[in-house]
Amino acid sequence: MTTTLASGADLFAKHRATLDGARDAIRTRGYYSAYPESAKAYGESAMADGKAAFDARLGKTFALTQPTTGATVAPERSPYGIALDVQYPVVDVDALFAAATQAMKAWAAASAETRTGVALEALARLNAHSFELAHAVMHTTGQAYLMAFQAGGPHAQDRALEAVAYAYDEMSRIPASVVWEKPAKPEPLRIEKRFRIVPRGIDLTIGCSTFPTWNAYPGIFASLVTGNAVVVKPHPQAILPLAITLDVLQGTLRDAGFDPQLVTLAVDTPDHLLAKELAQRPEVKLIDYTGSSAFGTWLEKNADALVYTEKAGVNSVVIDSTADFAGMTKNLAMSLVLYSGQMCTTPQNLFVPAVGIAAESGRKSFDEVVAALTQAIDAVLGAPERAVEFLGAIASDATLQRVDAENAKPGVVKRSVALEHPKFPGARVRTPVIAVVDAADRERFSHEAFGPIAYVIRTANTDESLRLATEQARDKGAITAIVHSTDPTVLEKAQRWAREGKVNIAVNLTGSLLVNQSAAFSDYHVTGGNPAGNASLTDAAFVANRFRIIETRTPAA
Amino acid sequence: MTTTLASGADLFAKHRATLDGARDAIRTRGYYSAYPESAKAYGESAMADGKAAFDARLGKTFALTQPTTGATVAPERSPYGIALDVQYPVVDVDALFAAATQAMKAWAAASAETRTGVALEALARLNAHSFELAHAVMHTTGQAYLMAFQAGGPHAQDRALEAVAYAYDEMSRIPASVVWEKPAKPEPLRIEKRFRIVPRGIDLTIGCSTFPTWNAYPGIFASLVTGNAVVVKPHPQAILPLAITLDVLQGTLRDAGFDPQLVTLAVDTPDHLLAKELAQRPEVKLIDYTGSSAFGTWLEKNADALVYTEKAGVNSVVIDSTADFAGMTKNLAMSLVLYSGQMCTTPQNLFVPAVGIAAESGRKSFDEVVAALTQAIDAVLGAPERAVEFLGAIASDATLQRVDAENAKPGVVKRSVALEHPKFPGARVRTPVIAVVDAADRERFSHEAFGPIAYVIRTANTDESLRLATEQARDKGAITAIVHSTDPTVLEKAQRWAREGKVNIAVNLTGSLLVNQSAAFSDYHVTGGNPAGNASLTDAAFVANRFRIIETRTPAA
Repeated sequence: MTTTLASGADLFAKHRATLDGARDAIRTRGYYSAYPESAKAYGESAMADGKAAFDARLGKTFALTQPTTGATVAPERSPYGIALDVQYPVVDVDALFAAATQAMKAWAAASAETRTGVALEALARLNAHSFELAHAVMHTTGQAYLMAFQAGGPHAQDRALEAVAYAYDEMSRIPASVVWEKPAKPEPLRIEKRFRIVPRGIDLTIGCSTFPTWNAYPGIFASLVTGNAVVVKPHPQAILPLAITLDVLQGTLRDAGFDPQLVTLAVDTPDHLLAKELAQRPEVKLIDYTGSSAFGTWLEKNADALVYTEKAGVNSVVIDSTADFAGMTKNLAMSLVLYSGQMCTTPQNLFVPAVGIAAESGRKSFDEVVAALTQAIDAVLGAPERAVEFLGAIASDATLQRVDAENAKPGVVKRSVALEHPKFPGARVRTPVIAVVDAADRERFSHEAFGPIAYVIRTANTDESLRLATEQARDKGAITAIVHSTDPTVLEKAQRWAREGKVNIAVNLTGSLLVNQSAAFSDYHVTGGNPAGNASLTDAAFVANRFRIIETRTPAA
Repeated sequence: MTTTLASGADLFAKHRATLDGARDAIRTRGYYSAYPESAKAYGESAMADGKAAFDARLGKTFALTQPTTGATVAPERSPYGIALDVQYPVVDVDALFAAATQAMKAWAAASAETRTGVALEALARLNAHSFELAHAVMHTTGQAYLMAFQAGGPHAQDRALEAVAYAYDEMSRIPASVVWEKPAKPEPLRIEKRFRIVPRGIDLTIGCSTFPTWNAYPGIFASLVTGNAVVVKPHPQAILPLAITLDVLQGTLRDAGFDPQLVTLAVDTPDHLLAKELAQRPEVKLIDYTGSSAFGTWLEKNADALVYTEKAGVNSVVIDSTADFAGMTKNLAMSLVLYSGQMCTTPQNLFVPAVGIAAESGRKSFDEVVAALTQAIDAVLGAPERAVEFLGAIASDATLQRVDAENAKPGVVKRSVALEHPKFPGARVRTPVIAVVDAADRERFSHEAFGPIAYVIRTANTDESLRLATEQARDKGAITAIVHSTDPTVLEKAQRWAREGKVNIAVNLTGSLLVNQSAAFSDYHVTGGNPAGNASLTDAAFVANRFRIIETRTPAA
């Protein structure tokens, strides 16, 4: 692709309407999307072109402009069983940081508009790579194709744009200069003050294995727009989506006259995991992290940099009563099935009173609730060719082992079974395992059981359900919560307890919206107030500390 | 004082114009002040009334509404030698946190407008206590009376108002609710989303010994307005100004129908220093700290709470050339003399090329620069009755000892001497000590020498001066910097290096504005980008993370 060299200012003007739309949206938190989630919007050949672009990456060395030792590493394995063998350059860490530091100079000196224009151009170009990214996300994370396209492409781009809008908003609130005139005798004191936005330094973005673009883009783009350089350390199983992203970013920077080494890729090798070493580099002033709680908490406690984390949590559903029993169970079944429970937003613990619940069709016993849920899962999954489009594939061996172990435990009412994938014989497809446990059995359910594992927990009553859900959010972290109730006092109590657990809550979802879904510009993803993470996508706090303001005071004439 | 019970909404309306003025000012960063710094504005009897109110506090137990063990402690000693003997209640820490947690419930449930209204009312009442606060600040910190009145009263109140304006701005940017409507077939997906502002928890404010109100108010008020409770742990030598502040705050809260224990005072006892213990309480989610680098860095590394620090630094002056030699030396002399160098903004290191500098009246040798500076100090100080109004008194024994030690070191060109205070025979008044040292003598000048101690450092040239100043800002921290030069290329270079050291810089100050001064609404105090502190008074980053947003999603009809 040949691109005309365009200045950042030109790019800012070119994408102005997109930015303005995003800035409006973050004020109302209403519906907005800049990048279509419908495949049709991309033209007839886009899907095939994306597939071809992805295929062309396989079995080759991935070229990026950055220092390398000359060695390469190819750690990724497709959960669908196809051969990837993309070889990534092994980095020379010292040289990488030197290059990033050097590249940051001109970038930091550019205007906020220039940096924003370049970021918006990169997003437009990434959008044109959405189908290539879909395959890259699918074959690293195990997501089904449609989810990989939407969440890995346009939804991730929207989330990036949201962060750009917040960052630009924050920067534009700082005047370039003012003449400060203080009344005094015999004449006022007049001082010219200039305010410069100065980046913190290098941002280290540590990617995750499940939504490598969606989770990494907000930090990457917020840091870039505020003048920082970014070193991306991807999860060793999900490199390609971020490598393609950096390839596009480097090309955009180059075309706009900036050093592409402003963004670089640092890939682990099996005998040299990089995250700790990179996180402790003195040049690293910001860290954006998505991943396990253990390492996220280590970063929060040990890194000198500002750290923004999304870690793990235990998400709860409190079922008190419903006016749409079938809709409720179907909605929950979809939530549990989607991407085999490998979303940080998937419910894990479903609290149901031992005495059962009230429904529009009369009382449902505890066992009837459980039966309806497992039947709804079966109905959602249907035949394997349909099921795999919801389930995707299991990304890691650890998850497979966890599911197998759970299958063998007491209380299982629905075992996880392996399904054949009609298109990918090597795909690791698993249905969810559902177990019924008692409220007293905390050991079993009060930690994250990542993957297609859910517990229906028998409680004394809804108060106990709410109390347990709140405690877990507060103590273990939670990213989502649902309550089903027709009783306004229960709903009021649930919201009060959600505020105490600092978790976002959904109420009576019985239609197509799932609690798993988080919409850019509208839903704050992770509250940042419980152990599931210390930051939110996206609010002002996520961007406002990525730069500093340096002031110059000069007496004015 | 009898006050009519007023609702938070009424108070918000009452103080709306003040808030609007502040919100305008933080957008332009132009001149603004809500609380007059002129004593005349307070009416004829205000000074005498303030003195009487202060006197009435002495020798008594300070009553606050909060749990206590029943014991009291009276650790303050006036640097002016008068007897204080104010006895503060010793706290029962567990009961204190329980009371704060309980008080926070209704406060967090109130609207942003209500909380803001109460905060603005408290500031108006504090303003009426400005002369009482002046004496309290003077006799704990050693500031001279006028500075204690201005910096401890109206300037601190302005700084608080600035923080309130930022916090209200951030909160008002979050809509209470929206109906999110996503286009879909057969009909759009409509979700009602409600967004609630939820406080982080308890803010621990750790006060300093020099500007107890000015430095503590921004954190206290930003945290309160965003719904948090505040526990204030004052410096053991500067309790009274914050105790009076909390008394006023508790009264305002009570009158507005809130639990006064939302704000409480936790005073160290000689055998039980509280800061570490309080900082590690699980209820503490925010810490605002002003004080030594050692403890500030400990907090940054070890506290689980979000930590906002202002620590110590080494402030530099780079003298290259000047068009107003007399103005420059007089301005610098004033900066060094003011409050005996006990301001975090006082210059310490004055870099001067060995070959001297160009001035409007011709070349000045290094020795001539030094001589002019020491003469300017003598001129500024004049007779003792005038000198003490600039110098104030020395707050701590450690500073006195440091000055005595410095007097005995090589290179001293002006020894510190003790002055008699005409009004307070016991006052510890000292003139500055000035030493000439070599650029190679890093051991001597590359750490903070708190108090009336300054070094004139002989460098090879201005480039070396700038390099050393930048290195110290970057490595040791700096809160202020000045450059004097008539050469635009030097000024450009100085600003570039200031951005590298992430320090605010003043240029060619030769008039009444001193680099020490930092104006609310306009000057960002501390950049937050070098080791002198991780936060700035006040920017969006200082307030935006003090609350979280909790979302409720409900399908809309």
